[in-house]
Amino acid sequence: MDVAKELAMENLKTNCGGPFGACVVKDNKIIGKGINKVLCDNDPTAHAEIVAIKDACKNINSYDLSGYEIYTTSYPCPMCLSAIIWSNIDKIYYGTTTNDVEELGFRDHRIYDYISQLMKNDDSNKMIENKCIDRESIIQIFKEFKEKDDKTIY
Amino acid sequence: MDVAKELAMENLKTNCGGPFGACVVKDNKIIGKGINKVLCDNDPTAHAEIVAIKDACKNINSYDLSGYEIYTTSYPCPMCLSAIIWSNIDKIYYGTTTNDVEELGFRDHRIYDYISQLMKNDDSNKMIENKCIDRESIIQIFKEFKEKDDKTIY
Repeated sequence: MDVAKELAMENLKTNCGGPFGACVVKDNKIIGKGINKVLCDNDPTAHAEIVAIKDACKNINSYDLSGYEIYTTSYPCPMCLSAIIWSNIDKIYYGTTTNDVEELGFRDHRIYDYISQLMKNDDSNKMIENKCIDRESIIQIFKEFKEKDDKTIY
Repeated sequence: MDVAKELAMENLKTNCGGPFGACVVKDNKIIGKGINKVLCDNDPTAHAEIVAIKDACKNINSYDLSGYEIYTTSYPCPMCLSAIIWSNIDKIYYGTTTNDVEELGFRDHRIYDYISQLMKNDDSNKMIENKCIDRESIIQIFKEFKEKDDKTIY
């Protein structure tokens, strides 16, 4: 966590993004590092955890981080939490909480609330408009995928 | 949506990732395109929507896609939905549903369920272990960030 903290502190100086840092670790060795680079990279997905996961995957040449852990200075937002799950990381060590991050002005908590509402089919606080179109034709692509013998589900 | 569908169909041939495609659009013009590249890029975050958002942001040189819409062949997973919200995209047009994607074997639904449980402080189905450490020292970084005059909240 000390390295993640240093990364977050460095980011304070650069205005590259929010004050967040993360490291992907296995057997006490750092395999990937990340800082928040949303502003300097013009990339809304470049949160510290995403950058660290991409770095680790590049370094081990795999999309599968089973057996790895992530240290992140703040509890991951829903985007990063989901990315961590998709990557099969085993454990998250985090510093500050979603409430702490909300106090800085970031929307993590509101996005968590929105997703939770979606699951309850509660439409009262529509954070983003959405509309289903063309399902019948797109489901044909799924049928073809199901029939493929050489597919990989990750 | 026709372009997103074509991208998804092309991906069936390449085994680059799941059968998904996405486009970011403004005023009927495509600004960014994406296919799922999890397998070929060894990147668990390379879902079609994330790839399309990164492409659009690169093309307009901004992390802010306010006023843009996204067409995606499947309803976004929680990672991509959150990325869309972080990018300030206004509207999502999607084809197949989270249930349709679950039937292919992808974990979108389970991640949505897990996040929803988290919000209810329900610990019964722990999808990933997590532990809070070092909060007191990391909150000091937040204090410094709060005092910065030139910070940008996105």
